[in-house]
Amino acid sequence: MKTLKVALLGCGNVGAQVARILLEDASELAARAGAKLELSGIAVRNIEAKRDVELPRELFTTDALALIADADVVIELLGGMEPAGELISAALASGASVVTGNKALLAVRGAELGALAAANGAQLRYEAAVAGAIPILRPITDSLSGDRITKVMGIVNGTTNFILDAMDTTGAQFADVLAEAQALGYAEADPTADVEGHDAAAKAAILASLAFHTDFDLADVHCEGISSVSAADVAAAADAGMVIKLLAIAERLEAGIAVRVHPTLLPRKHPLASVHGAYNAVFVEAENAGELMFYGAGAGGAPTASAIMGDTVAIARRLVADAPVIASGVRGSQPALRFDQIATSYWISLRVADESGVLSRIAALFAEHGVSIELLRQSVVDSADGGSALLRIVTHKSTEAALAATVAAVGKLDVVKEVTSVLRVEGN
Amino acid sequence: MKTLKVALLGCGNVGAQVARILLEDASELAARAGAKLELSGIAVRNIEAKRDVELPRELFTTDALALIADADVVIELLGGMEPAGELISAALASGASVVTGNKALLAVRGAELGALAAANGAQLRYEAAVAGAIPILRPITDSLSGDRITKVMGIVNGTTNFILDAMDTTGAQFADVLAEAQALGYAEADPTADVEGHDAAAKAAILASLAFHTDFDLADVHCEGISSVSAADVAAAADAGMVIKLLAIAERLEAGIAVRVHPTLLPRKHPLASVHGAYNAVFVEAENAGELMFYGAGAGGAPTASAIMGDTVAIARRLVADAPVIASGVRGSQPALRFDQIATSYWISLRVADESGVLSRIAALFAEHGVSIELLRQSVVDSADGGSALLRIVTHKSTEAALAATVAAVGKLDVVKEVTSVLRVEGN
Repeated sequence: MKTLKVALLGCGNVGAQVARILLEDASELAARAGAKLELSGIAVRNIEAKRDVELPRELFTTDALALIADADVVIELLGGMEPAGELISAALASGASVVTGNKALLAVRGAELGALAAANGAQLRYEAAVAGAIPILRPITDSLSGDRITKVMGIVNGTTNFILDAMDTTGAQFADVLAEAQALGYAEADPTADVEGHDAAAKAAILASLAFHTDFDLADVHCEGISSVSAADVAAAADAGMVIKLLAIAERLEAGIAVRVHPTLLPRKHPLASVHGAYNAVFVEAENAGELMFYGAGAGGAPTASAIMGDTVAIARRLVADAPVIASGVRGSQPALRFDQIATSYWISLRVADESGVLSRIAALFAEHGVSIELLRQSVVDSADGGSALLRIVTHKSTEAALAATVAAVGKLDVVKEVTSVLRVEGN
Repeated sequence: MKTLKVALLGCGNVGAQVARILLEDASELAARAGAKLELSGIAVRNIEAKRDVELPRELFTTDALALIADADVVIELLGGMEPAGELISAALASGASVVTGNKALLAVRGAELGALAAANGAQLRYEAAVAGAIPILRPITDSLSGDRITKVMGIVNGTTNFILDAMDTTGAQFADVLAEAQALGYAEADPTADVEGHDAAAKAAILASLAFHTDFDLADVHCEGISSVSAADVAAAADAGMVIKLLAIAERLEAGIAVRVHPTLLPRKHPLASVHGAYNAVFVEAENAGELMFYGAGAGGAPTASAIMGDTVAIARRLVADAPVIASGVRGSQPALRFDQIATSYWISLRVADESGVLSRIAALFAEHGVSIELLRQSVVDSADGGSALLRIVTHKSTEAALAATVAAVGKLDVVKEVTSVLRVEGN
C-alpha cells in the first residue's frame, strides 16, 4: 500500500484533533483512502506550547517550509492571512495538494490560490472553511452541479447564533449575553470578527463563489453585524412569530448576484429558525431540487477536523488512482450587486401617538416613496406614555435607498415618537 | 468541446424532467460538465403514452439495447427489477456509466452491479435512490470518509411521513389519512410498498452499505410499517411531547450493524421531529462530526431529476478529464445483526385498574424479565370504565425478546385492562 506524507501546519484546537485522528485512526483511514496517511510533521511557532491532545514530541518542527517540501498533502490550520498564504502558495507551487479551513484567506485570495492549484495539477480543498463539519461545499459544487442554485442562506457563525438564540430564549440584552458567551468560551475575548459579521461575510463570499460559478471576494459582500440588535427587537420579533438570525445570503437576481450578511427576521416555521445554540445550518434553493437544508456543528475541534479529514481522504484517493484533478466547469462572470441595488422586504417597528389619522399619514409617506406595505399591525397601547401605540409594518420588496428615505421621512412626523427597529425579512 | 451521448431509459414523472433539463439547460450543463450532454434517445414501452413534458417525438424508441450500445452515460428510470437490471448490466458491461434511482434493484443487487461497474471501468451512481433531491450518499461516502459514522436515521419515505404528520396534526385515523393521501396523489392506489416500509427498507440497506463500508441487502433489514399505528398512539405520543415517525435506522453496535425500519417515537425537540409533510431528512451521527442533518424534497419529478443530473455531470467531468474511476476504499464485512440481537428503548402504554398495588406488580414483572424502567407515568384516570388509569412506561435499552416476554406477562395480569401500544423510542 502506498504511503502519502501529510504535513500539518498549526496545532491549535482543530489541528490537535486532526493529528489525533491521523494517528489513532490510521488503519481505518488507510482502508478509506487506499493509502497510508503518514503524519510527517506538525509545524508550529512554539514547540513547547500546551496542546489539547498528547502528541509525540518528535513530530513538531518550527520549519514549515522544510515540512512542506517533503509532503504530498499539506493541511493548513494556522488561520489568518500570513504566513498561511505564503505557505499554501509554496505547497501548491511544489505540486502538493492543500486542505485548509482558512475562510479569511480564501475570501480574499481564493481565486488566485485556486488558479495556482490548477496550474500545478494540485488540489485545493476547504470544506472546513464554511459551517465546520457540515458537508456543504461538496453538495453545492458536485451534487447540485446539474441544477441551478437560486439562493443560499446560511447560519454560518456559531457565536452569533448562540447569542441571538440566548437573547430569544432569555430576553436578555446583547451585551449581557455576549459576556456570558465569552465566559462559556463561545465568544472570543475580542468578539469583533464574529459579532460584526466579518467571519460570516468571508463564508458568504466562499458560498457565493461556489454556488454561482463566479469569483466573489470579501469586498463584494455587504456586511452588518448583530451588535445593534436589541432585546426589544428580539421581543417584538417573537411577538410577531419571528426570530432574528444573522444570515449569510447569496442570491441570484436578474441583474447579478447579491451577497450580504445582516441580522434577518425569519418566520418561526422556517427551517433555519429552529437552529439553536452554536449550531450552523445552510439553506439552499435550487430550481429543480427545491429547498434543501444542511445542519450540524459549525465549529469545534473534532467536528472541523472531520471536514478536514474528508478532504484529505478525497485527495489521497485521487493520488492513489493517479487521476488528474477533475475540474468543476468553467467559471462565469456574473456581476456582484451593490447593496443599494438589492430589493428586500423590511420590517419597521414604530412607536406612535395613539390618535386618529396616524396610520393614514404614515401609509401616505410609504406610498409617496414607492414602498409598498404588505402588512401593518397596530398593537400594545402603552398608556404610561401619554398614549402611544406600536406599529409594525412589513413591506413588499423595496430598495435600501427607498426604504431609508421612507424611514427618515416617517421619523420626522410629529406623531412618530420613535423608530424602534428596522430589520430585513426573509422566508416570509 | 467533447459531446457525450446520454441515453434515457424510462420517461415517467422523473424521466420527463430529466429529458427537459437535458434539453432546456444544455448550455449551462455543458459549462458545468465540460462536455455537451446530448440526449441521444429515450427508451419507453409505449411511444404514444402521454408525458408530463412535451418532448421531440424522434427521441423516443422502444429499442433500449440499441440506445445503450451507443451511449456514454445511461440513465435508468424504469424502476423495479426487470428489465432495469438486465439493461443496467448491459450498459456497464459495455463500459458505459450508469445513473439510476432504482432503490429496489440496488437494495438487492447493488453489490453485484457495483462490482460489474468496477470491472468495466464504469461508474454506477445513484444519489437519487435515497431521499430524492437531498445530497446524502455523496456526503456519506466522500465528505465523511475521514470520520467514523456511528448511526444513520432517516425519514426516507414521503408518503408515510405525510400520513403520520397528518395524523399528528388532525388526530385522524391511519385509514382516513391514507385515503386522503391517495386522493392528493401522495400515496399510490396500492400503497403497500410505502406504508409497510418496504421502500424505506430498500433505502436503509443502501444507506447502511455506504455508511458502514459493507454490503447489506434487503434481507438484512428488519421492517415494520405504519399500518398498525393508531390515532391513540399518536395522541399518547403527543401528550408525552413526542411524535411518531417511520425511521430507517442503520447503527453500528459492538457485535455488528443493525439495520431496521419501524415506527419510532422521537422527542419533539429532535431535529427529525420537525420534518413535516412529504419532506425527507437524514440524520447522521459520526464520531468526530457529531450530529448532522440533511433535509429536502424526497420525491417528485424535478427534485429527483436534480439528483440524477448531479450524478450525470459528475460522470461527465470524469470522462472529460479521462480520469479513472476513483475507488472509495476497501469494503469490510461487518455482520448484519438479527433484530432480536438489537437492544432498543421501548415505550409501553397500558390501561390498568385504578387500584393500589398495580404499579408495584407491574414494576416487579419488568424487573423479573430484566427490563429496566427509565420512566413511569400514571395519568388520565377514566372513571367511565369502572376506574382505570393510563400507565406509560419508557424502558432503558432492552432486547426485543425480553420486551416481548415482559409485555406478554404484563398483559396477563388481571389488573391490566389493555396493552394500548408498544413503540420503540430513539433520540431521548
